[in-house]
Amino acid sequence: MKLGLAQINTTVGDLSSNEAIILDAYHRLVKQGAELVIFPELAVCGYPPRDLLLKSRFATDTQECLERIAKQIHEVPALIGCLEIASSKEKGRPLYNAVAWCEAGSIQSYGRKCLLPNYDVFDEERYFEPAKEPLVYEWNKRRIGITICEDIWTDESIQTSKRYCNDPIENLAEENLDLLVNLSASPWYINKEQSRQNLIQQVSRRLNCPVAYCNSVGGNDELIFDGDSFITHPSKGIIAQMPKFEQALSTFDIEASAQVSSKIECSDSTLKNMHEALILGLRDYAKKSNFTKGIIGLSGGIDSAVVAAIAAEALGAENIIGVAMPSAISSSHSVSDAEALAKNLDIEFHSIPIKDSVESIETNLAPNFQGLARDVTEENIQARLRGVLLMALSNKLNGLLLTTGNKSEIAVGYCTLYGDMCGGLAVISDLPKMQVYALAKYINRNGIIIPQNTIDKAPSAELSPDQKDEDSLPPYPVLDAILYHYVEEGLSRAEIIELGFESDIVNFIVKKVDQNEYKRKQAAPGLKISSLAFGIGRRMPIVQKYIN
Amino acid sequence: MKLGLAQINTTVGDLSSNEAIILDAYHRLVKQGAELVIFPELAVCGYPPRDLLLKSRFATDTQECLERIAKQIHEVPALIGCLEIASSKEKGRPLYNAVAWCEAGSIQSYGRKCLLPNYDVFDEERYFEPAKEPLVYEWNKRRIGITICEDIWTDESIQTSKRYCNDPIENLAEENLDLLVNLSASPWYINKEQSRQNLIQQVSRRLNCPVAYCNSVGGNDELIFDGDSFITHPSKGIIAQMPKFEQALSTFDIEASAQVSSKIECSDSTLKNMHEALILGLRDYAKKSNFTKGIIGLSGGIDSAVVAAIAAEALGAENIIGVAMPSAISSSHSVSDAEALAKNLDIEFHSIPIKDSVESIETNLAPNFQGLARDVTEENIQARLRGVLLMALSNKLNGLLLTTGNKSEIAVGYCTLYGDMCGGLAVISDLPKMQVYALAKYINRNGIIIPQNTIDKAPSAELSPDQKDEDSLPPYPVLDAILYHYVEEGLSRAEIIELGFESDIVNFIVKKVDQNEYKRKQAAPGLKISSLAFGIGRRMPIVQKYIN
Repeated sequence: MKLGLAQINTTVGDLSSNEAIILDAYHRLVKQGAELVIFPELAVCGYPPRDLLLKSRFATDTQECLERIAKQIHEVPALIGCLEIASSKEKGRPLYNAVAWCEAGSIQSYGRKCLLPNYDVFDEERYFEPAKEPLVYEWNKRRIGITICEDIWTDESIQTSKRYCNDPIENLAEENLDLLVNLSASPWYINKEQSRQNLIQQVSRRLNCPVAYCNSVGGNDELIFDGDSFITHPSKGIIAQMPKFEQALSTFDIEASAQVSSKIECSDSTLKNMHEALILGLRDYAKKSNFTKGIIGLSGGIDSAVVAAIAAEALGAENIIGVAMPSAISSSHSVSDAEALAKNLDIEFHSIPIKDSVESIETNLAPNFQGLARDVTEENIQARLRGVLLMALSNKLNGLLLTTGNKSEIAVGYCTLYGDMCGGLAVISDLPKMQVYALAKYINRNGIIIPQNTIDKAPSAELSPDQKDEDSLPPYPVLDAILYHYVEEGLSRAEIIELGFESDIVNFIVKKVDQNEYKRKQAAPGLKISSLAFGIGRRMPIVQKYIN
Repeated sequence: MKLGLAQINTTVGDLSSNEAIILDAYHRLVKQGAELVIFPELAVCGYPPRDLLLKSRFATDTQECLERIAKQIHEVPALIGCLEIASSKEKGRPLYNAVAWCEAGSIQSYGRKCLLPNYDVFDEERYFEPAKEPLVYEWNKRRIGITICEDIWTDESIQTSKRYCNDPIENLAEENLDLLVNLSASPWYINKEQSRQNLIQQVSRRLNCPVAYCNSVGGNDELIFDGDSFITHPSKGIIAQMPKFEQALSTFDIEASAQVSSKIECSDSTLKNMHEALILGLRDYAKKSNFTKGIIGLSGGIDSAVVAAIAAEALGAENIIGVAMPSAISSSHSVSDAEALAKNLDIEFHSIPIKDSVESIETNLAPNFQGLARDVTEENIQARLRGVLLMALSNKLNGLLLTTGNKSEIAVGYCTLYGDMCGGLAVISDLPKMQVYALAKYINRNGIIIPQNTIDKAPSAELSPDQKDEDSLPPYPVLDAILYHYVEEGLSRAEIIELGFESDIVNFIVKKVDQNEYKRKQAAPGLKISSLAFGIGRRMPIVQKYIN
């Protein structure tokens, strides 16, 4: 049996474009000889539709779109991720996250998702009613099990295991399947491919049949879907592998003697994946919100350099504008390093001094500040004035302002709200500082793009004379480690101290993280590449007093 | 039987303070003669704890706090909203939203919440496992049904009815109860008291027993809990009523011949409630985040005037600083109206001109803007410079900057990101413009506080010469009506047009709302007072293309 996998990039809510993408993929795969075509989860409306699902017409509009698609599906059936509207007699939530078996010009049957993820970035219990068990569809004398994304993530060994009371794979174990299909919209984070492949190979062995896994690709707001679809066989392992971070249409004969692929991610490829993920996430965010140009404030430091390099790849160097904004305090290398970077990347570069305007603002405020010492206020004025200038360029030139903060500084609030936090998208907000350095080295793998001095010099916000990040923060390797334990693992202070960190430092960092929730509330959306990003998947109260 | 209701204001995560508040309330109610004391939902850890529940120690810390409290509870039992940790053998999520029956120095039994709200601002399926049925506890020859908040919101007539497959009230109908208790943390929105009282009276009739409803009071981030606890009797109606928007401890004998209260909210009291809700929400946000001072940019317009009046009541006039920031474009009345308001409120007032600094910024940008016409860029520079000044005052004087945007302008994006949107809390972001006017009149009910000219003049952002809001927007009564249908009711464009609105206007407004999701993503948290606010309860994608 020849399967066609459509690893496509749909846009949330863009029903007519999604319809065209689905039909084009279908016809191409049929031409390639596919006997059954498989699409990703919620392909018709895009994933995640979030509160669009609460709009009066969204489900019926999506349903009508699916029906138009089904009319074009004839001899070769297609499995399409879609919404199913519950009948008005049914209790529970009014929608299912579903898959339609389309054939002979109409929808033959629906399968429904059993396990609705409701943790991290997922909200599916907000919208959908779960099914009791997955659909088993008989076709051409074959028994095909049809699951959606989370339905197969039931293994005891993975963290999610305790969250569900039923196990669709157990339900399917008695069904003597010839094939298990899984339609996914599964967002990428670092090293996810490894756990995903292990998991699905185990499912294949448990059910003793091949598993065809078809995942979405593309960026939608904070989430990056990596594609990476594949087919696995109970004894042969992965027998077919599709590319990562790009659209692809492929057919595979699951009954032919398959080549055994050994393509399993190793940690050396993590940086490559991260790089490609960020490029895809930024490109899609800009494209889907109709921006061609990107604007970046260049400080001469590592963060803005890495963002500029990613942006040049994502949008084309000719579409990137880099802007240095030296103040009275800025070092000479801040401008020269920024300029060298712009030259290496071949992007447009401007330098706009802010000294006069800072003075004008401080003069106007002087009557109110009489008798009060200089403090962080004056540092913030500089950062915020830069925000005003960058936003003015963004408005006037219609460019997407990219904000350049990394996860470490956003965690402890070493960033200025309405200052360097200005921007439509945060490109590296989920990379701790040490990962930013690693990515910089990767970007320089074939020659210098990011100037060596930018990599070598000590990180500094340059908002007061001779300021260095490490004057008031522990060294970044220590900071990043503590933040990982506190933010991603949710460990208490005592537990982190037990791991061997100094208690003063741990207490200081934890307090900083908690105190700066209000800044993150107003942060730009940021591309998610870790298992827990600051963003839609982390919902801390702003005002709260829990200490532990 | 004499019930003691503890309508208390706890702070999320502040376990030691919450412990003190609970024990103090308990001892006072026992002194008043209470035979059974009832606390609100999740009183021990505060509501909503959100992702604090994912931290490694949060549940055990809360449990230990509850155990310390229970040691102080002796002859008179107390029902306390708390977390219950599932045993490691149980499947499903590891926590219950629970109530502890405390007596004789220890926890005697736990009741668990059956219906977990997972819509609007609620996320309970993210954290908790639901119970199959509510606890019925035998005590002193009485059968007491114990429910938590949502458990009793099962009536067919209310919107949430279709969301659940089971009905705890139906389970309890056969139980011959002597009393139903409900522990709630139920956030207020306009006119909620009416539907709440109707619902609970119906439950009382269905079960043929009194219902004691004990609700939290106080603000936590965006949510305002109104208290308004009461006891209702199946034939006598509401027999005891506690106050709104303030802490209270009261005892009621449910078996004595009760006075029948006729206190049911009428629409005339809506403004009073709204006013008190906003004062409570602002006061608690400031207090719980350790601010005593508030800072407000005063434009001479209605929005900032209403916010200043609320702030003066919430934090004390002596703690409010009003700041006018006239530009070259500002009208003369913008400063004189602001100054008159400040005088009426008896708050500190400053005027800081921005003309010079705007010119300095424009001069620095001139080389980049050569040949390009003036446009919204220059308007935004003014608004953003004001943001820089207000944030500098906030930093230097340690005051909470209050942002003054209303729901109508935030909906259509008539506000400047990083400009007038700057601030730690949005006080009236859930009030459409016409409600702001109504509230202004209410504030002036006993004499002029908000200058009549502020109320009478046409709304204007004053960012370009002779600009008026209605130059580019429909009149506010029309705008507010369309926004209500689109945002709160989720109607499609066609459905709104069918209601009699002009299609051009509807299309224009809907497009504006959709396009400005990115601004709202970075907005300050805003106090919720409607059934659907822009905020944690509304989760639209930012980049999406659904049009309907």
